[in-house]
Amino acid sequence: DSKLKIFSLNSNYPLAQEIAELMGVELGKCSVKHFSDGEVQINIEESIRGCDVFIVQSTSHPVNEHLMELLIMIDAVKRASARTVNVVIPYYGYARQDRKAKAREPITAKLVANLLETAGATRVIVLDLHAPQIQGFFDILIDHLMAVPLLSDYFKSKNFAEDEVVVVSPDHGGVTRARKMAERLKAPIAIIDKRRPKPNVAEVMNIVGNVEGKICILIDDIIDTAGTITIGANALLENGAKEVYACCSHPVLSGPAIERIQNSVIKELVVTNTIKLPEEKMISKITQLSVAPLMAEAISRIYENKSVSTLFD
Amino acid sequence: DSKLKIFSLNSNYPLAQEIAELMGVELGKCSVKHFSDGEVQINIEESIRGCDVFIVQSTSHPVNEHLMELLIMIDAVKRASARTVNVVIPYYGYARQDRKAKAREPITAKLVANLLETAGATRVIVLDLHAPQIQGFFDILIDHLMAVPLLSDYFKSKNFAEDEVVVVSPDHGGVTRARKMAERLKAPIAIIDKRRPKPNVAEVMNIVGNVEGKICILIDDIIDTAGTITIGANALLENGAKEVYACCSHPVLSGPAIERIQNSVIKELVVTNTIKLPEEKMISKITQLSVAPLMAEAISRIYENKSVSTLFD
Ligand SMILES: Nc1ncnc2c1ncn2[C@@H]1O[C@H](COP(=O)(O)O)[C@@H](O)[C@H]1O
Ligand SMILES: Nc1ncnc2c1ncn2[C@@H]1O[C@H](COP(=O)(O)O)[C@@H](O)[C@H]1O
Repeated sequence: DSKLKIFSLNSNYPLAQEIAELMGVELGKCSVKHFSDGEVQINIEESIRGCDVFIVQSTSHPVNEHLMELLIMIDAVKRASARTVNVVIPYYGYARQDRKAKAREPITAKLVANLLETAGATRVIVLDLHAPQIQGFFDILIDHLMAVPLLSDYFKSKNFAEDEVVVVSPDHGGVTRARKMAERLKAPIAIIDKRRPKPNVAEVMNIVGNVEGKICILIDDIIDTAGTITIGANALLENGAKEVYACCSHPVLSGPAIERIQNSVIKELVVTNTIKLPEEKMISKITQLSVAPLMAEAISRIYENKSVSTLFD
Repeated sequence: DSKLKIFSLNSNYPLAQEIAELMGVELGKCSVKHFSDGEVQINIEESIRGCDVFIVQSTSHPVNEHLMELLIMIDAVKRASARTVNVVIPYYGYARQDRKAKAREPITAKLVANLLETAGATRVIVLDLHAPQIQGFFDILIDHLMAVPLLSDYFKSKNFAEDEVVVVSPDHGGVTRARKMAERLKAPIAIIDKRRPKPNVAEVMNIVGNVEGKICILIDDIIDTAGTITIGANALLENGAKEVYACCSHPVLSGPAIERIQNSVIKELVVTNTIKLPEEKMISKITQLSVAPLMAEAISRIYENKSVSTLFD
């Protein structure tokens, strides 16, 4: 019988801590520091020989720092004779660079998958990849969890009147996600359809679906600079929506995001804790839900060799 | 006939520029920036189809940033149908983590070698690896250049009197390097022999070899916090040395390094430009020699499919 060990690196210690508590285990002891010149210095401070090791690390900002921490930790865990090296990446950075949109671009999401495998990961657990196809970038086992149930349950608990809610996708790419939430809320969907009539002419926002008098819930996977979501919210109000909520799995919230959200017509933004938010981003408009129960359940099932697939949806 | 292209990333643009000038070519056009969330955004702005591409990047501070830039660039170059992807790494970061010194440590120097290969490098050109064994961490071709001739020539040009010079290794690990310089300067060597008589008792500095009345040239591969080299310089003076020079290939110079060198008995510190020094580190005591001619020669020979090995020594 092999033993379970969960380690946290530096990107999201509170989430790892919560996962460990839910599972009734202590986080593994390891020190993740820097040498004087900034190189990552890792030392695992307890035996993990023969263990099933789970490393919790989001490759959020600063992404290169967090990714290298993770790769070096995988190397250390592998060389310390762990039985399996499971990598829990609640937020998978570089996911948007998942194809060549222009000539001579890298496909960094695939590079990262290869780097994780090369370092020695034997299994990867992720949540809401920007594109589900990124699963196929891995030759090792990958489990793809989803935040839609968590986000949907939160909105259900608001007990909005029947027929009052519409789930809205802010672009064409997100319709499948909106569809999933709409099913859970027994609501219809709408799509914000951006179109540039001619080059160098402002985009036109067209709403596909009926939002008149409705409570709209915008859903996206990542909210980064919050341009799409705040402009989308305006378009919904202009088209007669009663009020607009927004939600996403990964609150990247870079650059002008917080200011835009603060000044927007969005009533409440619901996010998860796949990315740790610094104090100054925890504004009252933002509600953060924890993915720890979902992650803990996934880790338990993987450790006990049970199916995880019922958690995928 | 394939075409030569040299690209510079962000760690050491002046060195890459100098290499390109010496070779009579323009640096390749590419943009290496960041998205709003800090992710590296690379675009190669000219065709490199069928080319022999050389990417110049030191993995110096901030090491994780520079390493990820390099890996992503390799991916982009490979996917842009380059014929060969040659990576010129004047300073190879993480080289000191080249073995397990304690239980459960990573071997990051090997990890980095694997990451470079996985990304798609077909050949690597480095200079003065912390341990020459790191060459064996690669399965692809690696050329290992040396700064000893460059550093030696500089001291030769000072025309010190015969029999006046001693080349000194600051520790046991560096004796081979000191030996190489001593041969070029036709000088004897000495070794600083640190010894801790009992645990928790201060180290004793013992000088093996004769330094009385001599001009000592301390040589190391990396000067990082400059503790070893400045304490060593003191020990040499205490043992009757006339004056102390120091030199190294890679001026990491982190933390208290500059202050220590400034306040030390070292008369002049000679370094190379494998690492770009920020303005505030360019103090008058430090002389920086350029490895660009050596690197340009190596790149030319590799491109023309000639032997590089005569540059190794
Ligand atoms: N970190 C990033 N921030 C903003 N845009 C990105 C980022 N990474 C990749 N992209 C670009 O976003 C586009 C993909 O986004 P999407 O169309 O939503 O899948 C591609 O054109 C990428 O070049
Ligand atoms: N960036 C770094 N700064 C300081 N020490 C390091 C660094 N990387 C590795 N080391 C340590 O330096 C030792 C190797 O140095 P050396 O004995 O000079 O080969 C090992 O014990 C490493 O743990």
